[in-house]
Amino acid sequence: MQTVSQRLWQTLPQTVKADAMLFHSGANCRYVSGFSSSAHTVLLTKEETYFLTDFRYGEAARKHCQDCIVMTYEKLEKSLEELLRRHACKTILMERSATTLAQMEWFDGLFQKAGAKAVWDKTLDDAIRQVRAVKTPQELENIRAAQAITDAAFTYILPRLQQGRTEREIALELEFYMRQNGADGVAFDLIVVSGENGSQCHGVPGERRLQHGDFVTMDIGAKRYGYHSDMTRTVAIGSASREQRKVYETVARAQQAALRTVRAGVHCHIVDRAARAVIDEKYPKTFGHTTGHAVGLEIHEWPYFSPSCEQLLLPGMVLTVEPGIYLEGKFGVRIEDMVVVTDDGCQNLTHSPKELIVV
Amino acid sequence: MQTVSQRLWQTLPQTVKADAMLFHSGANCRYVSGFSSSAHTVLLTKEETYFLTDFRYGEAARKHCQDCIVMTYEKLEKSLEELLRRHACKTILMERSATTLAQMEWFDGLFQKAGAKAVWDKTLDDAIRQVRAVKTPQELENIRAAQAITDAAFTYILPRLQQGRTEREIALELEFYMRQNGADGVAFDLIVVSGENGSQCHGVPGERRLQHGDFVTMDIGAKRYGYHSDMTRTVAIGSASREQRKVYETVARAQQAALRTVRAGVHCHIVDRAARAVIDEKYPKTFGHTTGHAVGLEIHEWPYFSPSCEQLLLPGMVLTVEPGIYLEGKFGVRIEDMVVVTDDGCQNLTHSPKELIVV
Repeated sequence: MQTVSQRLWQTLPQTVKADAMLFHSGANCRYVSGFSSSAHTVLLTKEETYFLTDFRYGEAARKHCQDCIVMTYEKLEKSLEELLRRHACKTILMERSATTLAQMEWFDGLFQKAGAKAVWDKTLDDAIRQVRAVKTPQELENIRAAQAITDAAFTYILPRLQQGRTEREIALELEFYMRQNGADGVAFDLIVVSGENGSQCHGVPGERRLQHGDFVTMDIGAKRYGYHSDMTRTVAIGSASREQRKVYETVARAQQAALRTVRAGVHCHIVDRAARAVIDEKYPKTFGHTTGHAVGLEIHEWPYFSPSCEQLLLPGMVLTVEPGIYLEGKFGVRIEDMVVVTDDGCQNLTHSPKELIVV
Repeated sequence: MQTVSQRLWQTLPQTVKADAMLFHSGANCRYVSGFSSSAHTVLLTKEETYFLTDFRYGEAARKHCQDCIVMTYEKLEKSLEELLRRHACKTILMERSATTLAQMEWFDGLFQKAGAKAVWDKTLDDAIRQVRAVKTPQELENIRAAQAITDAAFTYILPRLQQGRTEREIALELEFYMRQNGADGVAFDLIVVSGENGSQCHGVPGERRLQHGDFVTMDIGAKRYGYHSDMTRTVAIGSASREQRKVYETVARAQQAALRTVRAGVHCHIVDRAARAVIDEKYPKTFGHTTGHAVGLEIHEWPYFSPSCEQLLLPGMVLTVEPGIYLEGKFGVRIEDMVVVTDDGCQNLTHSPKELIVV
């Protein structure tokens, strides 16, 4: 199998003339090296790929880095300068979106000393997001493991959704279950919103207590070996009204419609439109966010199931499919799965049930 | 009492000619407005201070923002442009260290349309860090509340430091306790390191089990209303050897020496030197980090008790005092308190005991 470095060099447009690529953001350094630490810089030259870290991480980095030469530094700028000279690097692609003005100045000064020059346009950002969008078998395994913890947490919490308990208590219990059962941590601040709070698609779990007749929406995910999972389920407490059931079924149909369109070669916006059409017909203006996003070392990655995303789906991409209906002041419903794109459709990585559960 | 806006305008050097200041980073927006959300921009003109957010947060912002006019936007760029024109702002100070290249381009384009120009130097970063460094009575109350939760967690965990339990379990239990007892969250990833792991000053809690004769270092903190606390204690499991006791006493003496120097008007590096001198005499090259840092809405704020920090201490600054000794492959000790600087010394905000505890 190709190394990440090889894939990156091949992904660059042929018109781009560059001698090196440099990453300093956490997720990209982890992606290229396979190793996570708080001191990380990755330099890809045409000949070699280097992982630079300080003395604290040298030993662990040498053990865990993949396809990289590990170098420990006392002064990062000196080590970088030396490597740039050694490989005669004159033009270096840089991470535009991850660099602050202060960092840019620091790098520009360093490069000047080394007789090199940074390229601060979007070339490198575009290349790495394309490479990262298609997951390797190892990455898929990590995502599946993260989702397995999330599915287990959902099963665990169902009998604990008792009337009188607060959203905050439920969220905390979900988090601790995941962390006690193999998660590195949660994939994001878990969302547990109930009753009228359910109409806030990104509400924060608060002191509201679960009541008979509530819909409770739980948007939850675990992290495993750095990889994220993301799932949403809405369940009813005690009973569900006719209106609640109708909204739930509409969201479920919208999600099915979207899932049926997912296949390699399809434009992302087609998937969004499939879900949106079902909801807009019955509940116009109640679905205010996009239908999904890619997931990996970060919880929100490119591409997106949004009305404007023209990207073609490729086999191995992992995205969420998460339509919702939000009735202000009343309740909300969202159903979210993670899928991996295949040549003839997709494989659903989420195994929690999707029929309406009344607890 | 003066508003934050007034203090900011007064803090700017007189040579600076600017019509407005603009913040978009989370901590600074929260500091100026007193309100936290995921959509935030703060514009300070000479006449008014505006908090700009989207429709999701309008109601909450109007309720909680202090000394700001709350505006909700559909398109941030349009609202900003209109405000800049309304107040005839031509020169706008910007957050250099918090802005990425992509954001800079976005702002520059917007300002051009409004006939204005950004200042991307350090002026605004310097002003806000100076204002934030001196805590208000309300901020001190929040920090005290966060530390009270941390002290309680320490008391809670002591009888639970049983041989055979893993570092990870202890860290999780500390976090769970804090979040169940009023913390918004933890102030940072809690550190629990034992035995030979204790020599890693920023180790990650792992699967190592507590053993008789271990030193266990716990660097822990809670967040309350956005404000952080930070405390470290090292305790012994079962018994402590003569060498362990000697190292512990040396760290305790170093910390006392540093605490005695803290007083308004003292240079920060003096405090660092006081701790370092005690340790260097007995255990040279075992104290590899700085003696402390300021704490507030962020866990690491300016100024620092570092060998190179020339800043004078001012009444109301809150900093940690945290010397340590790390003997590679053997064990480590760190003792950390948070103090608020006063005219004639300091007040210790940490109430957990500091004599060596053997559990």
